[in-house]
Amino acid sequence: MTPHTYHQFKQLGMRLDMSRGKPAPEQLELSRALLDDAAAAGHLSRDGIDCRNYGHPLGLPEARELGAALLEVPPAQVVAAGNSSLELMHDALAFAMLHGMAGGTPWVRGEAAVLCPVPGYDRHFAICEALGIRMIPVPMRADGPHMEAVEEMVRDIPSIKGMWCMPLYSNPSGAIYSTEVVRRLAAMPTAAPDFRLLWDDAYRLHHLTDTPHATPAVLAACAAAGHPDRALVFASLSKVTMAGSGVAFLAGSPRNVAWWQQCSAVRTIGPDKLNQLRHVHWLRDRAGVERLMAAHRALLRPKFDAVLAAFGELLADVPGVRWTVPQGGYFISLYTPPGLAARTVALAAEAGLVLTPAGAAFPYGRDPHDSHLRIAPTFPSLADVRVAARGIALSLRHALETREAAVPATA
Amino acid sequence: MTPHTYHQFKQLGMRLDMSRGKPAPEQLELSRALLDDAAAAGHLSRDGIDCRNYGHPLGLPEARELGAALLEVPPAQVVAAGNSSLELMHDALAFAMLHGMAGGTPWVRGEAAVLCPVPGYDRHFAICEALGIRMIPVPMRADGPHMEAVEEMVRDIPSIKGMWCMPLYSNPSGAIYSTEVVRRLAAMPTAAPDFRLLWDDAYRLHHLTDTPHATPAVLAACAAAGHPDRALVFASLSKVTMAGSGVAFLAGSPRNVAWWQQCSAVRTIGPDKLNQLRHVHWLRDRAGVERLMAAHRALLRPKFDAVLAAFGELLADVPGVRWTVPQGGYFISLYTPPGLAARTVALAAEAGLVLTPAGAAFPYGRDPHDSHLRIAPTFPSLADVRVAARGIALSLRHALETREAAVPATA
Repeated sequence: MTPHTYHQFKQLGMRLDMSRGKPAPEQLELSRALLDDAAAAGHLSRDGIDCRNYGHPLGLPEARELGAALLEVPPAQVVAAGNSSLELMHDALAFAMLHGMAGGTPWVRGEAAVLCPVPGYDRHFAICEALGIRMIPVPMRADGPHMEAVEEMVRDIPSIKGMWCMPLYSNPSGAIYSTEVVRRLAAMPTAAPDFRLLWDDAYRLHHLTDTPHATPAVLAACAAAGHPDRALVFASLSKVTMAGSGVAFLAGSPRNVAWWQQCSAVRTIGPDKLNQLRHVHWLRDRAGVERLMAAHRALLRPKFDAVLAAFGELLADVPGVRWTVPQGGYFISLYTPPGLAARTVALAAEAGLVLTPAGAAFPYGRDPHDSHLRIAPTFPSLADVRVAARGIALSLRHALETREAAVPATA
Repeated sequence: MTPHTYHQFKQLGMRLDMSRGKPAPEQLELSRALLDDAAAAGHLSRDGIDCRNYGHPLGLPEARELGAALLEVPPAQVVAAGNSSLELMHDALAFAMLHGMAGGTPWVRGEAAVLCPVPGYDRHFAICEALGIRMIPVPMRADGPHMEAVEEMVRDIPSIKGMWCMPLYSNPSGAIYSTEVVRRLAAMPTAAPDFRLLWDDAYRLHHLTDTPHATPAVLAACAAAGHPDRALVFASLSKVTMAGSGVAFLAGSPRNVAWWQQCSAVRTIGPDKLNQLRHVHWLRDRAGVERLMAAHRALLRPKFDAVLAAFGELLADVPGVRWTVPQGGYFISLYTPPGLAARTVALAAEAGLVLTPAGAAFPYGRDPHDSHLRIAPTFPSLADVRVAARGIALSLRHALETREAAVPATA
């Protein structure tokens, strides 16, 4: 049934969790061969390394090479790690707190702050909050962060030690950093000598259109600007193969890779090289990854289109409402008139549809305008997405209507 | 060829690395089914969890249950994690430094020290050294650490926040903590309210004889003594199935598990549940693990016997030389007369045999008597172990002979 009012939507008794950017089961099924061919992948690497045993803390050589091909950096500058780039990001900041970045002093000894383009990724913010790293929001635009604000703050404030960046199809705005933004981030003077761009290239391969966008190579840009150690690049295969069992990558300057090796050497005797071997066996090379990503796109594009179609039908006439049309990545941002995002989420929840909490895309969970909603259409079936997208739009309309009705009463 | 002199040993031109306690390829082959049956293990858990996707940060329920059966604690008190208990130990201490143990303040705010029974595990010590946690050695006996020394120090010194313990077949002494030692560790008053026993139960299942030893359940002992949060238990399947691709476990009181969950929630969306599912599929239960460990024992026992036989033949007549006869675990400790351990390692290296560096079993790598050698006979073939063990003994004899010859010349 196609709901046309919030009441109809509620009557459907939907039970759906759309709060997180998870791949759908049919996407995971695309990499079935990782399981089916595990025996064929075996345990011996190209060079005869027994992948079952300890060792190789920076990862299996051919896994590092695959990461290098995907990130377009030399293999020696890539670490192939466990199943989660989030872990690498957390650990990089925990190491910075405890030991300092390469050549720097431990961040725990002073005040540490990072710039957070908003809206942004809630898990980035949760790491900072847990570690006691102060977060300073900066506005995000379609071509990247507001560079004048960024340049002024990093130039003047030595406690600003870093900045979160999702350069391509940013979570959740879909922003694509321009060549000029990347150049300025690489070149800008910073008061902190150990300033780092925390470059989460999560959606580098996750195009939603026939035009694969790309952002300039940040390590090369930083090196060219005389700041070779400025960027730490993070990426993973979690949304390429298996969300919980992928391979994560860290890339950086030779000095940063040595720093990572030193910090992590006491922590691990090596990653799961069998999983890395299976991934190389199945994906083979960059072309193999791109073929797989085309299959993901075929599954994901209709879901995004369904959301955009529902919003267009039900929200185009609502003043103050707008949404992003992402070219890639996992999210759509929906902006309500000020003060209605939390109410919309609550109304959707009353109807059985769990959305990402309002405010999640902002440091400390505080959206100053209470107007941003992160829509994650990847996990549910296309049929569910069609209904849910209408439900979101109808919840927003209902929030607006009931507020307008309430205002005179409380005035 | 069987060498009878150091010169003969050197002539063999051996090229062998015995520095680490790695399983041999034939041990890894015992768990071949982990790879061969990966497709059969599939991706759905007993309860229908899609193990390919994100989630379940404390681990797959049946993996937690397997860990609980092995550790003899309730499943709710077990976390099933990634491929390495070393990572869990590092992270527990890093979390303590940054956030404090459950109910405590961050260790970085003051001085933190841990007691280290010696000889002990070098990777424990490397974690502490990297994190700036001071290490205080205490003597290890056959039945566990010197308890009078331990009790006095933890009672009087509030900066002593913890103690490394390997209760069964301790690395590298083979010590087996007695019931009385475990009771006293659980009951002793500590000046630090957030004192923790860092209970590395690495060799719990790794018997070398037909008598499987066991140590008392430390969580129960701590709870009975009124210190329910005192112990953090670490274990893994790395030396059960695949060294680099096992499943690690953390066990603790409900409060400590909640603490772990809170600290690690910002770090990870979940462990590799497919690997956990494969392990449960292959091992099934405690009985399955014990059958597998019996097969390990059949491979390992002759190697340990070969070392002990060589030492008996070549070193029994040397005053001041002794060695341990382990009932389980991965190591033999060989004690040279004072001042000869480093020289013995150097002589072995000259002959092509790499041993664990002398001093490695002591905090900061400093063996005050330069007399301890850690022998790791598991990885090489039995034929190689036979030769290498003679080589070690002959290197020690040669070190002794050349020192005695040298003394008059330098006097």
